Amino acid sequence: MAEPALLFTPGPLTTRIETRRAMLADWGSREPQFIALTAELRQRLLELAHASASHVAIPLQGSGTFIVEAAIGTLVAPGDRLLVLANGAYGERMIEIARRLGRPAEALRWPEDQPVEPASVERALAEKPEITHLALVHCETTSGLLNPLDAIAAVAARHGRTLLLDAMSSFGALALDLARTPVAAVLASSNKCLEGVPGVGFAIIERTLIERARGVAPSLSLDLFEQWRGFEGNGQWRFTPPVQVVAALVEALRRLEAEGGPAARLSRSHTTFRPLAEGMRRLGFRLWLDDSVQAPIIATFHMPGDQRFRFEAFYAALAARGFIIYPGKLTAAPSFRIGCIGALEPGDFTRLLAAIAAVLQEWGMAPESAAVGEGR
Amino acid sequence: MAEPALLFTPGPLTTRIETRRAMLADWGSREPQFIALTAELRQRLLELAHASASHVAIPLQGSGTFIVEAAIGTLVAPGDRLLVLANGAYGERMIEIARRLGRPAEALRWPEDQPVEPASVERALAEKPEITHLALVHCETTSGLLNPLDAIAAVAARHGRTLLLDAMSSFGALALDLARTPVAAVLASSNKCLEGVPGVGFAIIERTLIERARGVAPSLSLDLFEQWRGFEGNGQWRFTPPVQVVAALVEALRRLEAEGGPAARLSRSHTTFRPLAEGMRRLGFRLWLDDSVQAPIIATFHMPGDQRFRFEAFYAALAARGFIIYPGKLTAAPSFRIGCIGALEPGDFTRLLAAIAAVLQEWGMAPESAAVGEGR
Repeated sequence: MAEPALLFTPGPLTTRIETRRAMLADWGSREPQFIALTAELRQRLLELAHASASHVAIPLQGSGTFIVEAAIGTLVAPGDRLLVLANGAYGERMIEIARRLGRPAEALRWPEDQPVEPASVERALAEKPEITHLALVHCETTSGLLNPLDAIAAVAARHGRTLLLDAMSSFGALALDLARTPVAAVLASSNKCLEGVPGVGFAIIERTLIERARGVAPSLSLDLFEQWRGFEGNGQWRFTPPVQVVAALVEALRRLEAEGGPAARLSRSHTTFRPLAEGMRRLGFRLWLDDSVQAPIIATFHMPGDQRFRFEAFYAALAARGFIIYPGKLTAAPSFRIGCIGALEPGDFTRLLAAIAAVLQEWGMAPESAAVGEGR
Repeated sequence: MAEPALLFTPGPLTTRIETRRAMLADWGSREPQFIALTAELRQRLLELAHASASHVAIPLQGSGTFIVEAAIGTLVAPGDRLLVLANGAYGERMIEIARRLGRPAEALRWPEDQPVEPASVERALAEKPEITHLALVHCETTSGLLNPLDAIAAVAARHGRTLLLDAMSSFGALALDLARTPVAAVLASSNKCLEGVPGVGFAIIERTLIERARGVAPSLSLDLFEQWRGFEGNGQWRFTPPVQVVAALVEALRRLEAEGGPAARLSRSHTTFRPLAEGMRRLGFRLWLDDSVQAPIIATFHMPGDQRFRFEAFYAALAARGFIIYPGKLTAAPSFRIGCIGALEPGDFTRLLAAIAAVLQEWGMAPESAAVGEGR
């Protein structure tokens, strides 16, 4: 096998080999060893969110979209009304999910490079007593933008509305303390900042909220109340879990703790994001977001106006050198993305920058000032 | 690490180490290498069912229940009516799914040890023109019973009804030739006779049927029309796939072909099922099903009446010796199950029988005639 490519993607991303090696065994899904792994998974997720006293952790088979749909279907009843705070593709997806499920929903929208504004949300809630649930995306994977969670959680709490948080891109790296920040349900997945492999999502839901959710979900597979009841009843998943994916996630969570938890992971993300942004700047690329709203998770760059730059060729040239960046854009404006999460070291980013410089050089586009350190 | 336990379970089951090793890499879900893996997966699934000319393969994240729910939600429209032919827990689950989704559904039921009867189905369809869809479980994982697929498919075809087949426990081992047996949609998963790891299900659906299914599904995540359109559009999964699980399944499918395909796998299953059944008979256990309806996939045994036999202790004693059997029963009658699928060799069954004999011996229950070969 050739040297494996490194993924600079918003997930699935580069995982540690120890995490992948945890998948080399087989487990029966109803045997005591696997029940113990599931219990450890649920407990570790709660602890990461400082939520052991107030919430329960409910993992679910599938991708991030599955857990978001499951949460909306289980927690937003037909007589409720959901207000989605949207400034990117994942906010829009929550609206689409609610509409598909026949749940009344509306959106408050901002441009993709602007954060959700607490004052506007406050006004909307004051004007619309019929809104029962608010949904926010913590870090929009569309752009890498960080929304003001604490302020929105305070607004939701003041108005007595239930806040659902899509924390897909942030969970495990950005601070989240549910003992201080009131969020009714946090949704995330195995394969982003937790650095597990994809195949499992999870919801961290207030115990008093999930207890009242019997019979709400219009789906059997995506019913988080029944999923929770299954775990509480016999420690087992209702339906066959991806046992190897779960084992990998538990291993990744143990590693996260050993490395110092989310604070250490965030700090590592900063140490890779800053040199990446600076190196790209020297190569003539501009970050798409203002520093004030930029999370160090995903770097979105303006697509260069230079006619010699063709993104598909750029992607392919980097891939041929062993560097996989994100192949598509989600923002309405022309842009491309490089993920700063995953089991990557600063040296990996140095080498990525060197590869980018080499590609630009080949295309006659390298700025004079583009020295970015040696590429090995 | 201790010698890994062997799984004699209906899935997740024992896989080949080569299959698990295929999970040691990372892939971006939208990179060309992974797109090629997905294309190979879809093509191999079609070929296994002899369906390349008529059907399309649509993999989906999640467990077997997810793909069954997705198929019912996508193919049975609100104005349709589903008749489920039920003689076990998985037939009942299809009824539950349809009811949850608000799809009109009814059941024709048989005892769990009796096969679905084509003549009764024929009468029901003649009497009920409002039935648009039929659902059958090929091999009921509840008991291991094999239902008469060819006869039911012929009845459905004669009456012009759409047949959905849950082939979860049979796909990859029992013969399935969609060029000869008219089935509109076949549903199965990665982790049974294909010997992949769990995390992906798939539907093999007539092209003309899925083409007409736009906008039917009440779910975004479980919409097989949109899932299919995604694959056809750019070769990608709509939402993050479990990339390692997909890679393992492709490896398992390559192995299946190299071993001689489903016919060879069925033949291997016979070579393990028969000695297991015979050895268990000598130990005083009786198969729960009549030979005429027994598929060599799952062996269900009557729970012994002997008061010295306690199933939980039996399960634990075998587990302590490295043999994991299925820890629960699904039939209404007292029974327990041993899976005969997975990457197991005849010698593994010899050793399992020796372990069972040793446990019975300890409990003073071993029959005189219970010599079952050496246990290593």
